[in-house]
Amino acid sequence: MSQKKVTRTEDYSKWYNDLVYKADLAEHSDVRGCMVIKPYGYAIWENMKDALDRRFKETGHSNAYFPLFIPKSYLSKEASHVDGFAKECAVVTHYRLKNAEDGSGVVVDPEAKLEEELIVRPTSETIIWNSYKNWIQSYRDLPILINQWANVVRWEMRTRLFLRTAEFLWQEGHTAHASKEEAIKEAETMLDVYAEFAENYMAMPVIKGRKTASERFAGAEDTLCIEAMMQDGKALQAGTSHFLGQNFAKAFDVKFADKDGKLEYVWATSWGVSTRLMGALIMTHSDDEGLVVPPKLAPLQVVAVPIYRSDEEKASIVAKFEEWSVLLRAKGISFKIDDDDNRRPGWKFAEYEVKGVPVRLALGPRDMANNVVEVARRDTKEKTLVSMEGIDTFIENLLHDIQASLFNKALAHREANTRTVETYEEFKVEIENGGFILAHWDGTPETESKVKEETQATIRCIALDQVKEEGKCMVTGNPSSGRVIFAKSY
Amino acid sequence: MSQKKVTRTEDYSKWYNDLVYKADLAEHSDVRGCMVIKPYGYAIWENMKDALDRRFKETGHSNAYFPLFIPKSYLSKEASHVDGFAKECAVVTHYRLKNAEDGSGVVVDPEAKLEEELIVRPTSETIIWNSYKNWIQSYRDLPILINQWANVVRWEMRTRLFLRTAEFLWQEGHTAHASKEEAIKEAETMLDVYAEFAENYMAMPVIKGRKTASERFAGAEDTLCIEAMMQDGKALQAGTSHFLGQNFAKAFDVKFADKDGKLEYVWATSWGVSTRLMGALIMTHSDDEGLVVPPKLAPLQVVAVPIYRSDEEKASIVAKFEEWSVLLRAKGISFKIDDDDNRRPGWKFAEYEVKGVPVRLALGPRDMANNVVEVARRDTKEKTLVSMEGIDTFIENLLHDIQASLFNKALAHREANTRTVETYEEFKVEIENGGFILAHWDGTPETESKVKEETQATIRCIALDQVKEEGKCMVTGNPSSGRVIFAKSY
Repeated sequence: MSQKKVTRTEDYSKWYNDLVYKADLAEHSDVRGCMVIKPYGYAIWENMKDALDRRFKETGHSNAYFPLFIPKSYLSKEASHVDGFAKECAVVTHYRLKNAEDGSGVVVDPEAKLEEELIVRPTSETIIWNSYKNWIQSYRDLPILINQWANVVRWEMRTRLFLRTAEFLWQEGHTAHASKEEAIKEAETMLDVYAEFAENYMAMPVIKGRKTASERFAGAEDTLCIEAMMQDGKALQAGTSHFLGQNFAKAFDVKFADKDGKLEYVWATSWGVSTRLMGALIMTHSDDEGLVVPPKLAPLQVVAVPIYRSDEEKASIVAKFEEWSVLLRAKGISFKIDDDDNRRPGWKFAEYEVKGVPVRLALGPRDMANNVVEVARRDTKEKTLVSMEGIDTFIENLLHDIQASLFNKALAHREANTRTVETYEEFKVEIENGGFILAHWDGTPETESKVKEETQATIRCIALDQVKEEGKCMVTGNPSSGRVIFAKSY
Repeated sequence: MSQKKVTRTEDYSKWYNDLVYKADLAEHSDVRGCMVIKPYGYAIWENMKDALDRRFKETGHSNAYFPLFIPKSYLSKEASHVDGFAKECAVVTHYRLKNAEDGSGVVVDPEAKLEEELIVRPTSETIIWNSYKNWIQSYRDLPILINQWANVVRWEMRTRLFLRTAEFLWQEGHTAHASKEEAIKEAETMLDVYAEFAENYMAMPVIKGRKTASERFAGAEDTLCIEAMMQDGKALQAGTSHFLGQNFAKAFDVKFADKDGKLEYVWATSWGVSTRLMGALIMTHSDDEGLVVPPKLAPLQVVAVPIYRSDEEKASIVAKFEEWSVLLRAKGISFKIDDDDNRRPGWKFAEYEVKGVPVRLALGPRDMANNVVEVARRDTKEKTLVSMEGIDTFIENLLHDIQASLFNKALAHREANTRTVETYEEFKVEIENGGFILAHWDGTPETESKVKEETQATIRCIALDQVKEEGKCMVTGNPSSGRVIFAKSY
């Protein structure tokens, strides 16, 4: 991390990386591609987890835990699945170290070689469907609605903190159903849960859509997704929900007896979001000064800094803050008084700005005399002198305002950067300016891949609320029934 | 799992295993030594996690996350640490699979061999202290009070569900301090947190003690522990808290500048509890009929079963339950009405008994007419007709009673099975009857290991509240200043 502050316009990628370090969210570890999530970053992730977990339980799901290791042969049972994951997985081959004979340290004990190699899970469909096989006999055993919070490993060659790491944390839902319709409904419901979470908690507008066949999850029949636009105009896939058809049921031979006693393969879904959401959160709201966290996910919502010269002044200011502390905590608002004598107010202001604490109060002797307090909001950096009377209600409303205003700002940004084009020439120009480009596509993987090769842009999704409109593919001129969303992406 | 019910006295070990399956807590997976924690078992673990996590935060700790993989060379940096863990670890040697040339499936790609092998963490001291090295410069950076919830892998050869599995879930606290005293204090504080959790939530009495040198954690200078007695009289180590001295700071060269600018090595602790606590919970309270869960950890505290012949009867009974549901939820009590028409009341009673739901209500038309309800408590299997008036308060008090009574019963069991012996002859007889044996020991590892070889009993701990008492070692006759606790153990 450099000392010089880099702005978003100067170098977006460096700005991001510096911010993750400066706000103390995470850092690279010495283990290739693996990050350390530091306490402040983890606290935001915990808030995300809690909100999502609540919604999963409200929609009837339970948590469970399946093994970290997947026998190599399981991964191979679903053909497209293994194709998708085999090239980037950590393989356990031995189960013991021993002292080197030359005394140089410990070495892998060749005697302790596994008969079958184990893969560190890149995702758990195979190990879970191998268990479901024993859990499902009849329609009475269905649906199974299970979620798992876990770490997974995908051996990515080019990693970026939160956005793409070899190990990451996530949740993966795995459900089993008696009918196709029910499974499709489940995949849609969970997409709605993700979209609602993204918009209401992360204050991040998303487009709900469907991936094209070539962008589908390895093993899925249909992949739904939520796509968000970052401040640099690039797209970020924030969550996916897959209808898996009967692919895994067939691979693991999982059948159930229906009400008439007829044996049928079980229908499946899986859905997940990961610590990647931390990257999305950062890139949606933060500014050149540091992190901006929406109040609903902020580990600390309000910080109070006393401005004083004498112990007496300090005591009376802190006493006032303590009164408010009781009122705010009663409203469920997290509040911290920073009365550390070793740091000057200016240092504290900068620190809480970098960390994105939504609201900062500053109170000095003159304010005390005037019965007012300075309230600074992190998002707009606006400062106001506010009457002490009803300060708790003022702050409560302000937090709501900030949450709504962050969402509206991000939505306005997306709308301003979403454009419609008719020709491929136009497209090639517009895509370089970033943003979402709505264009007609003939529905073939060939055209999709040509566009990707020539412009690095992919079809992010076919929006679920796509407007039906007769048109001609911008590349081939072949007929299209509606525009799809192209963008460069993370 | 067999169909025939096995009692604790017939075969304790089989009883345990059958119970874990019947109560739907966990099962063996196809991956050697790894278990699947099923939703009901995971829900109990989640309640444990929540209660512990709250206490960790109240005592000033934050959660963070460190990499799953540890470079082999890191593990080797602390000599006794690597000795303790090298013989049972999963080793990642490759990062890619490829299609076999003979078309037989996927194989490990020999081209994708790691330069340095990675160990799947058996515990995280080394990877964490390697990070702390960069976080700590001065006394101002201390203390660091971090906890991690994670999965770890120790390649155990003989596994038992929850008690000993190759992969398990746990929390590991890792703290860094400027002084020896502060680190010792931290290790003691966390032992107190564990003991309080064990006794107040798990209703499991524990003895706080100190491990002998030979039973210490690999790399620790002092290991504190809580030891519990299971119903078969065996001891179970339920949690440990280690004072690590400066061992890891020296291994990873972590120094801080004190107030005078002098460089000193940092002092450390680590402490952990794991899904092993699930085994402890089961073996402390459960009976031949199934699981018994203390109310504070029960995923479901009260279940209500309507007894009816007609839809009309059902409707009025369920309406009554729904009234109570509001009252109980207001008191924070979890409550479920099981009005499933496909199952008979007797089936439901048996099901909730096996799952250990603390309180069951049964209500039929005659009870309705008499304004009473049948209340059955799981722990004693006692049934009482209780007036509907103030039923919510009655249930609230009953849950408290059950919690206290489970603890008292377990404590009485431990006291009844704790005996004092003077001679080694006496010891050899008594140890076969199970329980904790208090005896004098000369403090040498030789005597300790002789006893272990000859009787399979180990010194569980030297109780922190050990009575100072002049005595003679039961084996060597050498002087001893107090009795230590011997037992066979899990």
